Amino acid sequence: MENFNFYVPTTVHFGKGQIENLAASVKQFGGSKVMLAYGGGSIKKNGIYDAVTNELKKADIPFVNCDGIKPNPPVADVRKGIKIYRENACDFILAVGGGSTIDAAKAMAAGVCYHGDVMDLMADGKGEIKEAAPLASVLTMAGTGSELDMGGVITGEKTHKKHTIMHPFLYPKFSILDPAYTFSVPEKHSMAGCFDAFDHLMECYFVAGSETTDVQNMMNEGVMRSIVKNAPLLLENPENYDARANIMWASSMALAGFQFIAGKKGSNWPMHAMGHELSSLYDMTHGITLALIAPAYLEFTLEKAPEYTWLFANFARNVFGVSEANNELVAKKGIEKVKEFTLTLKMPKNLKEAGVEKDKLEYLAEKATEWGNIGAICKMEKAEALEIYRRAFE
Amino acid sequence: MENFNFYVPTTVHFGKGQIENLAASVKQFGGSKVMLAYGGGSIKKNGIYDAVTNELKKADIPFVNCDGIKPNPPVADVRKGIKIYRENACDFILAVGGGSTIDAAKAMAAGVCYHGDVMDLMADGKGEIKEAAPLASVLTMAGTGSELDMGGVITGEKTHKKHTIMHPFLYPKFSILDPAYTFSVPEKHSMAGCFDAFDHLMECYFVAGSETTDVQNMMNEGVMRSIVKNAPLLLENPENYDARANIMWASSMALAGFQFIAGKKGSNWPMHAMGHELSSLYDMTHGITLALIAPAYLEFTLEKAPEYTWLFANFARNVFGVSEANNELVAKKGIEKVKEFTLTLKMPKNLKEAGVEKDKLEYLAEKATEWGNIGAICKMEKAEALEIYRRAFE
Repeated sequence: MENFNFYVPTTVHFGKGQIENLAASVKQFGGSKVMLAYGGGSIKKNGIYDAVTNELKKADIPFVNCDGIKPNPPVADVRKGIKIYRENACDFILAVGGGSTIDAAKAMAAGVCYHGDVMDLMADGKGEIKEAAPLASVLTMAGTGSELDMGGVITGEKTHKKHTIMHPFLYPKFSILDPAYTFSVPEKHSMAGCFDAFDHLMECYFVAGSETTDVQNMMNEGVMRSIVKNAPLLLENPENYDARANIMWASSMALAGFQFIAGKKGSNWPMHAMGHELSSLYDMTHGITLALIAPAYLEFTLEKAPEYTWLFANFARNVFGVSEANNELVAKKGIEKVKEFTLTLKMPKNLKEAGVEKDKLEYLAEKATEWGNIGAICKMEKAEALEIYRRAFE
Repeated sequence: MENFNFYVPTTVHFGKGQIENLAASVKQFGGSKVMLAYGGGSIKKNGIYDAVTNELKKADIPFVNCDGIKPNPPVADVRKGIKIYRENACDFILAVGGGSTIDAAKAMAAGVCYHGDVMDLMADGKGEIKEAAPLASVLTMAGTGSELDMGGVITGEKTHKKHTIMHPFLYPKFSILDPAYTFSVPEKHSMAGCFDAFDHLMECYFVAGSETTDVQNMMNEGVMRSIVKNAPLLLENPENYDARANIMWASSMALAGFQFIAGKKGSNWPMHAMGHELSSLYDMTHGITLALIAPAYLEFTLEKAPEYTWLFANFARNVFGVSEANNELVAKKGIEKVKEFTLTLKMPKNLKEAGVEKDKLEYLAEKATEWGNIGAICKMEKAEALEIYRRAFE
């Protein structure tokens, strides 16, 4: 097992009615004037905005709104938040939303403490995060895990390129996770969220997992299995509280750090790198891009790195319950199960069906391999990425 | 899924050579004069004492010793630590040892900030923990999980009764987990540690697990499986780094809060309650007492609560790979596997072999049920506890 550090300082209040902890938690972390960051206004329709603001009002905590944060959040939305925060002399950011809103709030939290442009603070920027405003989240959509990690993804303005921002200061101070708050998430986004969480676990499992990391591998398998079981239940009944609760906690656990960086391979996450480029070019929902890429990526990897057949076979057996004895056969069946799972979640069948143009694949492959090393199990340069996009095309 | 809170603020530095983070971490949490708390001196023989003190000396951090902390730490050792800390005007406690040392250090950390007797601060005491000195750990024995939780167990002076101390202030600020530091742990204690961790997971699984907590159940199964795989490897070769690493991380994960309080049943942990009384009366190693109790407890529970056959069957299938189709049969086989596992770990075969006197069973049953509600899956009063002790006897 390779060396690693583990640090997850966020307090989670999980369950029905946990919003009642909001005001005391804001005060605990020094918040006396809050900027509420949220998206397109669905929280005003489903009552969550009222629930949040009532708690703040009852506790006499003033707040200002920063609304309209878009999916795949563009840096313009981050800049807007920084401006509002400063103009109103806020001292706390409360993100009420899903991953996009929380990611944008993280960039705002870093940006308000920095004198240059916030893009400098991205992982590929020239600046350094030296402090950040305290932030917290009220989660309204499960999937990204942003409620329990220290990273975010922001879309640059010209090329729509995705940039990551990451720092221990950007862990939410607390996150309120009420599964009932996700009842009204549309089916498409609920299912994309399920696959996003599943993909985080797969990336950890296949990229960082090794024969020396049993604890991490086996915990990951368990969380993946819980998603495979609960996502269809949620599809059947969007108000199934326990299914929502399991998907929500699985999504948080998927990025909570207990399974990170423990193997010998190490690299950026290849499926995310390839998926982000699809989102950049077509503004597609993140989880959907991952569902489109994953089966082709896994199939390609197994072919190129047959020495990892054992890992694919463990995955098939322990996540999908494939029971044949032959490792090679089981490994392949596991990948078929991933494909079936994407179809169960009503993800598009292939890139073509999702509206991707064939003549853009080469451009996508070039961009995806600009993310630094995305190879891990097998070499992953432009040619390999292109082959995977092609296999995923139709 | 029931509501729960999740909070694990401890930073973990895991792996070979992580002691190099010691001095900077002490300083990060305001330590300028450290009290080193440790046990009977094995750390002086195996070089860990030198490694720790060299790091402190290099960084010009003065320290004093509080040595001789005994297993199942008696309150007298805690009082001694409080005295040394105060006399030397320390501002940081560094526990170097296993669960007993860390537990004692937690009680010291609370005690030095309290003007009355430290026993007041136990869960059954009359005082309240309002602050605590910062503490951290360098782990030298895996099993208890004390390095990543907020609780400890202290033995009272007259009756040798076990008392728990628990508060969020008692989380270690950081824990250094170097698997190589456990190479020299004697076989008996290594194996007891493996079963202790396994038992923590079983208590969570059987006591808090329900049909609504898939994520917690499946993560627990994964961690248990990693212990079942790695404990025998460690037995075979005590210097198998990866086996030590997996056992160490599994032990930490077993109490790291991911899987707590999420079911519908809730109670104190019955196997721990019954085991603690064995330790109180006979000064037995904690993990060994659990290995003696667990199979009888599980067998009794399955008989009395056949409606949980599904949970026992999941356990058998997903932890031990039992593959029969019939749930009842599988459930029973899972319990046999637990018994076999205790024998693989060279635990004593039964209470009689471990030196327990038959005429003490009634006393033990009475004491064990003084721990508050230890029933959960089935009623657990004195008569039931006695029946389990009897089944475990021979």
